Amino acid sequence: MHTAIQVINPNSSRAVTAGIDAALAPLRMAGGPDIRCLTLAEGPPGVVTQLDVQSVAVPLAALADSLSAQSAAYVIACYSDPGLHVLRERLSQPVLGIGECGVLTAMTLGERFGVIAILDASIPRHLRTYAAMGVTGRFAGELAIGLNVQELAEQARTLARMKDIGKRLRDERGADVIVMGCAGMAAYRDELQQSLGIPVVEPTQAAVGMAIARVQLNWHGG
Amino acid sequence: MHTAIQVINPNSSRAVTAGIDAALAPLRMAGGPDIRCLTLAEGPPGVVTQLDVQSVAVPLAALADSLSAQSAAYVIACYSDPGLHVLRERLSQPVLGIGECGVLTAMTLGERFGVIAILDASIPRHLRTYAAMGVTGRFAGELAIGLNVQELAEQARTLARMKDIGKRLRDERGADVIVMGCAGMAAYRDELQQSLGIPVVEPTQAAVGMAIARVQLNWHGG
Amino acid sequence: MHTAIQVINPNSSRAVTAGIDAALAPLRMAGGPDIRCLTLAEGPPGVVTQLDVQSVAVPLAALADSLSAQSAAYVIACYSDPGLHVLRERLSQPVLGIGECGVLTAMTLGERFGVIAILDASIPRHLRTYAAMGVTGRFAGELAIGLNVQELAEQARTLARMKDIGKRLRDERGADVIVMGCAGMAAYRDELQQSLGIPVVEPTQAAVGMAIARVQLNWHGG
Amino acid sequence: MHTAIQVINPNSSRAVTAGIDAALAPLRMAGGPDIRCLTLAEGPPGVVTQLDVQSVAVPLAALADSLSAQSAAYVIACYSDPGLHVLRERLSQPVLGIGECGVLTAMTLGERFGVIAILDASIPRHLRTYAAMGVTGRFAGELAIGLNVQELAEQARTLARMKDIGKRLRDERGADVIVMGCAGMAAYRDELQQSLGIPVVEPTQAAVGMAIARVQLNWHGG
Amino acid sequence: MHTAIQVINPNSSRAVTAGIDAALAPLRMAGGPDIRCLTLAEGPPGVVTQLDVQSVAVPLAALADSLSAQSAAYVIACYSDPGLHVLRERLSQPVLGIGECGVLTAMTLGERFGVIAILDASIPRHLRTYAAMGVTGRFAGELAIGLNVQELAEQARTLARMKDIGKRLRDERGADVIVMGCAGMAAYRDELQQSLGIPVVEPTQAAVGMAIARVQLNWHGG
Amino acid sequence: MHTAIQVINPNSSRAVTAGIDAALAPLRMAGGPDIRCLTLAEGPPGVVTQLDVQSVAVPLAALADSLSAQSAAYVIACYSDPGLHVLRERLSQPVLGIGECGVLTAMTLGERFGVIAILDASIPRHLRTYAAMGVTGRFAGELAIGLNVQELAEQARTLARMKDIGKRLRDERGADVIVMGCAGMAAYRDELQQSLGIPVVEPTQAAVGMAIARVQLNWHGG
Repeated sequence: MHTAIQVINPNSSRAVTAGIDAALAPLRMAGGPDIRCLTLAEGPPGVVTQLDVQSVAVPLAALADSLSAQSAAYVIACYSDPGLHVLRERLSQPVLGIGECGVLTAMTLGERFGVIAILDASIPRHLRTYAAMGVTGRFAGELAIGLNVQELAEQARTLARMKDIGKRLRDERGADVIVMGCAGMAAYRDELQQSLGIPVVEPTQAAVGMAIARVQLNWHGG
Repeated sequence: MHTAIQVINPNSSRAVTAGIDAALAPLRMAGGPDIRCLTLAEGPPGVVTQLDVQSVAVPLAALADSLSAQSAAYVIACYSDPGLHVLRERLSQPVLGIGECGVLTAMTLGERFGVIAILDASIPRHLRTYAAMGVTGRFAGELAIGLNVQELAEQARTLARMKDIGKRLRDERGADVIVMGCAGMAAYRDELQQSLGIPVVEPTQAAVGMAIARVQLNWHGG
Repeated sequence: MHTAIQVINPNSSRAVTAGIDAALAPLRMAGGPDIRCLTLAEGPPGVVTQLDVQSVAVPLAALADSLSAQSAAYVIACYSDPGLHVLRERLSQPVLGIGECGVLTAMTLGERFGVIAILDASIPRHLRTYAAMGVTGRFAGELAIGLNVQELAEQARTLARMKDIGKRLRDERGADVIVMGCAGMAAYRDELQQSLGIPVVEPTQAAVGMAIARVQLNWHGG
Repeated sequence: MHTAIQVINPNSSRAVTAGIDAALAPLRMAGGPDIRCLTLAEGPPGVVTQLDVQSVAVPLAALADSLSAQSAAYVIACYSDPGLHVLRERLSQPVLGIGECGVLTAMTLGERFGVIAILDASIPRHLRTYAAMGVTGRFAGELAIGLNVQELAEQARTLARMKDIGKRLRDERGADVIVMGCAGMAAYRDELQQSLGIPVVEPTQAAVGMAIARVQLNWHGG
Repeated sequence: MHTAIQVINPNSSRAVTAGIDAALAPLRMAGGPDIRCLTLAEGPPGVVTQLDVQSVAVPLAALADSLSAQSAAYVIACYSDPGLHVLRERLSQPVLGIGECGVLTAMTLGERFGVIAILDASIPRHLRTYAAMGVTGRFAGELAIGLNVQELAEQARTLARMKDIGKRLRDERGADVIVMGCAGMAAYRDELQQSLGIPVVEPTQAAVGMAIARVQLNWHGG
Repeated sequence: MHTAIQVINPNSSRAVTAGIDAALAPLRMAGGPDIRCLTLAEGPPGVVTQLDVQSVAVPLAALADSLSAQSAAYVIACYSDPGLHVLRERLSQPVLGIGECGVLTAMTLGERFGVIAILDASIPRHLRTYAAMGVTGRFAGELAIGLNVQELAEQARTLARMKDIGKRLRDERGADVIVMGCAGMAAYRDELQQSLGIPVVEPTQAAVGMAIARVQLNWHGG
């Protein structure tokens, strides 16, 4: 049966996948689709460079192909949406990227979205994506917390940085809604939103939410 | 308990509300939120003119206010999204418009969306909305089937017109995804998509799908 | 005879209407159209919330309809242009909004316009309007003076705030022309412009000026 | 006294100036500013090439300078707005271009403006201007009637071509308001609008109308 | 010595590489940089699908790395610019993509560029690129000749199709400059331009031309 | 023989022309086109005002015409691109402007370009040009060093100002590539880039580089 939504973390960190899995618990409904979270074994420890983004496309496509018989939809759980258009072109099932869905969801919660990135180096790539999506008219700005993978393990520091960056996006750039520009940080969403006083979008939850409806309605790509 | 999604049809046609209600059946999941469909008694028979759009805001706000204690989210089930920002400003619960969500969903299914309107007179209003949303870079075109309320009751004719207009949007305007620019026509979606060979978005289903996730995640406006 | 321009203040404050009326004196020419200023009795004390904006549409349309036999044109004297498209759709006479005309006039006086709003809460609504008008490429920014109705009565304080906000728009946002984002503040225009050293547009004057030509030329909507 | 609006035709054709002068009669009001129409003796017979547009800037500036003591405002009566920014930079009085004001006025009369040009060769130049103005989001299209100066003298033929081109802009490009992309054709406006059933803007009348208000209000550039 | 420009054809067709090599002869100047044309052995026979585009990034990066000591600049000779940002991020030398440079060059030759694609399936990808580049305001349209690799070998038929598509872009979409949306078709450029009467850009030549200046000036990325 | 690229400095300063000439040395290749640098004797000492920009068009066209038999291409060596479209319309040879080519080149070196202007007064003109080019989506900001012609002779001070302004564009406006918004300052490029750590484009070099390829390929305008 094609009833599972496959949420694929394209980096090889099982801890990140576990975080994603936990964050999706509220979206698992008795009468709704299965939501499975997978780690791309061939992925890099983190998707950081432009090469990381592109290099995961081939193993991601292979994994998605191999799961096709048991999949109702796919969600690519990395804010850079690696392989999004590759999978869309190959598969008849719905394929959603968390970057894309995070931004589109933010567009229902405020007029100008700001994005909290992990590293400065990702921002030019994200700018290209917002422009390719045609939504730069709604973009307020993007700033990075500037922590590496090890530093991200320090939770208090990470949250404090997110609050700082969120405030700057709100006060200096005029953002009235914030997108978390990464997967696996859902645990901070509530406190971050409370601190900022404006809506905060966790993109994996946003994307999986959209995928559920797609599955229930049996919408395929056309 | 705040567990129901209130889907409000702002015109007074109970038949339209019934059609909406039926279309949402697949989105009613055990373990998921209640989905209730309401008719705005004070609404016009159809939301056609600019005055119709604006005049429903006051009774819609009153109805939404009165339901607040039992509502987890609201969906305004009219493609012109009447009262959307009024309700957002007044209520702490999520409020989604089907026009907005129909377009945002289409942006995950194709590069350039085309819209099938009912009447020519609505198109300038919709153009203003797409521009206000900042998504005109993704807009291929909008054309009307040109049928009045009575004519819409002739189902075969209505579907035939939708197919014709959909083909023109696809072939003459370069649309690769279609949005049905109205509520209450979900029954035609599958056949229309099959005929056109490109994805078709039914906007009420799209919006309610997004609302479900918002409720399950307990996301409020910030 | 259809010779009067009806300038309708959609809030119920007769003091605001009186201020508007005084500001239009230079535009009353012996050989030109009558310019009448009206207060919408059913309007709220001030148009502040999104509901205020939408709720005035119905009584505004009724008032405009009732005046039709004696009207050559209408100007809606509120920066949020409430009911603008409602009136345009119903009436054969020209209908102008002061928000729209204030911005268009600013586009002949500088490259990037900044707007002085009264309250922060109005800014997202104005942003949607600039986007809907398709003029965000010329928009430098908008900031609020943050005074309520009572505080606005303190003239020296109001003007001082406008100067401060105008300077920030000029120096921090790069505005080279300023639009006063409200009706009824024409008395401050000259001193504000002198203080800032860049052009300042009073939007009611701008709109009525455009309406006069429309009447003299006998241009109807088509 | 600085009470005259100087409407300068930058081509050397006195017949064109005479046509402009006649078209402005309704805007001459007792109590309003003088409106004088001038021919730039040094101008080319028609402003056709890019060199024509640029070469008139120097004599136009000289003429405007020489008139400064008796001028309250200037209108440059050529759709390509030659010398517009030159004059604005040099003079403290308001300076308006008919291309600019024609388009801005159209933005109050429809959602998407179409332009009737005289010659194909001018269209790329006009496209650059609309983009520089930041209004391409409102632009439906521009098409030329393709008549040279001698052919323009045949009035019935000229009007017939304008009707044809206007219909194509309306039906093929989706224009719901038309701008006449030239000076000196005001005599055709009423019949053209009646034929098309959508508003038609005569740009010299639009610009002079805006200039009158500027003069009455004593607005200078800042 | 770092004096060679490496022009890398990311598909495995040596015939295409040979065509590119021949087309670059006029750009080989005594005193100028070496221009070497390479075939990516690991590439697909043609870059057609989205997976093709992404899958070449890894071997392309490896090849570029291996050549670094002897390279002054790189040109990626495929209109979809595969791996462009990967190489830019890794290498200190200039890296240019032919899609990007073809479009930028067209922007100096006309107001609105049209693109002749090989296959319809590539067009949505190209649309995303133009949007990401921020140049959609200059984009007139893109249409495909619809020939597969074998059919492309029939030269007369290929050229005839290009002429047909070019004429449609010129006449129906308003293009005044054409970009050939593929590598390896330089042999048709002159005849195509002569037939259409508007400039035609061969993108590999355009990109290599820009690379030569970069090398001579010794400009690195910063 | 039509083998020379004519690089025309439209101001009358021979010192500026000499600086340009020196900067182009690396682009003079044994087998490449001649590159000649000319001073427009009729030009103003510096192109500063809007009138300066427009007034040079006529003598520039005359000079270009007179050189036509011996010219393979033209480069207008002033960042405001005076007369660019005049020359393009008159001449069959390629004509490039350094403003245009500087910006297009920057678009291959970063996501958002910042511009260092000489004087504040030029910035509104440049903004219009970026908008007319359709590239404002890539524009980060422009700031002036604010030095007059005499002050520019103090080299250390000029470079120091450029470094300051470049840092502000990088840090406050998010520019990741810088365009020098003037001709004749190539001598500062290397040190400026080293100081800023992001690419710096010298526009005359960029334009002449593009012209060389155009000449070698024998591309005319169509």
